[in-house]
Amino acid sequence: MKTFRLILEYDGTDFEGWQSQRAPSRTVQGCLGEALEKITGSRPKILGSGRTDSGVHASGQVACCGVETRLDVEELHRALNATLPADLAVLQLDEVSADFDPRRAARSKLYRYCIWNGPRRSPLRARRTTWVREPLDLEAMRQAACALQGTHDFASFQAAGSPVASTTRTLSRVELRGRSGADVELDFEGTGFLRHMVRNLTGTLLEIGRGRRPPQDIDRILAARDRGVAGRTAPAEGLTLVWVRYDEPIADERADRAEPAPTPLRPELG
Amino acid sequence: MKTFRLILEYDGTDFEGWQSQRAPSRTVQGCLGEALEKITGSRPKILGSGRTDSGVHASGQVACCGVETRLDVEELHRALNATLPADLAVLQLDEVSADFDPRRAARSKLYRYCIWNGPRRSPLRARRTTWVREPLDLEAMRQAACALQGTHDFASFQAAGSPVASTTRTLSRVELRGRSGADVELDFEGTGFLRHMVRNLTGTLLEIGRGRRPPQDIDRILAARDRGVAGRTAPAEGLTLVWVRYDEPIADERADRAEPAPTPLRPELG
Repeated sequence: MKTFRLILEYDGTDFEGWQSQRAPSRTVQGCLGEALEKITGSRPKILGSGRTDSGVHASGQVACCGVETRLDVEELHRALNATLPADLAVLQLDEVSADFDPRRAARSKLYRYCIWNGPRRSPLRARRTTWVREPLDLEAMRQAACALQGTHDFASFQAAGSPVASTTRTLSRVELRGRSGADVELDFEGTGFLRHMVRNLTGTLLEIGRGRRPPQDIDRILAARDRGVAGRTAPAEGLTLVWVRYDEPIADERADRAEPAPTPLRPELG
Repeated sequence: MKTFRLILEYDGTDFEGWQSQRAPSRTVQGCLGEALEKITGSRPKILGSGRTDSGVHASGQVACCGVETRLDVEELHRALNATLPADLAVLQLDEVSADFDPRRAARSKLYRYCIWNGPRRSPLRARRTTWVREPLDLEAMRQAACALQGTHDFASFQAAGSPVASTTRTLSRVELRGRSGADVELDFEGTGFLRHMVRNLTGTLLEIGRGRRPPQDIDRILAARDRGVAGRTAPAEGLTLVWVRYDEPIADERADRAEPAPTPLRPELG
């Protein structure tokens, strides 16, 4: 039995998330299990660094499983990508020690929320970004983003009815890039996240960007420890789990991927 | 009767192109006609600047139609985007003179071909780029791209059996951007294009990039005037019609769109 660590990319649009309670559902974990069963004849238990919600994407989700196989790493890697559906792929596959736990060993994660702030909806961005028509006040959002950085009790930003021991988390970075009226990206880097936390933070930042709340509201919301006080949950389609970091850096054959991406187009008119 | 010019964005994945001969087919022209019929009660004739193949995207296709309506431009624009499916939208709508012909009046067009040259397939790029696994020799491709610029008889790059009077066209720009092993983009700007011309040019450039042909082959292929001599047709999914230019510049409320796009992610690992 060998233990493998997988780095996964998926377009979350047609998945009911990483894992699902509902019986016949298409999940990332399920598709991965099916592919491994086809290749090796048995279905392993798969651990993820954390669950992603239905519709949420990943470009660097990390998972782990024990596999009985005579294939070498490269053969197994190719067989997996040939078997998996078009919206899910293994970017990197490595043999690791049997006690690797992708959830407990994770030191930090980066989530990115992509917003299309143009005046009309954009079909080529639709699967990956959330459309906000009203021009956003990015300065107000930046001020609020700053106030979110650091260690806080994020109870107000946790999905109602989530049973966790502590709601205190640390956000080492909340960064906003882009331009009002165009593409805007929000990066959230932290050691751990509560259920729906990034989408609830984004929903609140968007209400600030639309001028419906002042940036100073953040302190009041954090202090309230009440989900009802924060903004609405932003839609899943804008969210991507970009990477998960561990103590030992993952040697990255994919360093290439840090390049400018296929630009979703600019009508360079006029 | 008012005449409107439409600037259209579409994700071509689920369309059988701009227009189709086959009877029950989902086309861009068809969806636009249906939406206009729902809004105005009658289905207008719609002219495009040119046809895009099945699977080809657009961020700035231009079309034109005559519409009988009491709605003002902004009302009609909103009604259209509310009625059209998620993969098709009107970016800009203007009233123009009744004799505007988006095909004949077009002065130049930009087509962009996007290639993902990474070692593993990328689900988040899958709808918009073509995957080429072998690292490409971009210098050889650049040399060949240079040789394509200018006025040539492109008969060797025309889909077999296309009846046109002349196969001479002018490419004012063939530009390659990106990095071997990562995202690569090819821009083709020209006054007119033959059927499948951009995909046939790209297929040939890719064979040069893979070292299967020398860059000098371009002159020989152009001289041969024989489709059998050039490379294979590159897949539709990598191709996007970016813009169409006219004598009078189109006042562009979408200048915003010329911004950096929602980056399809970089596992910034390690």
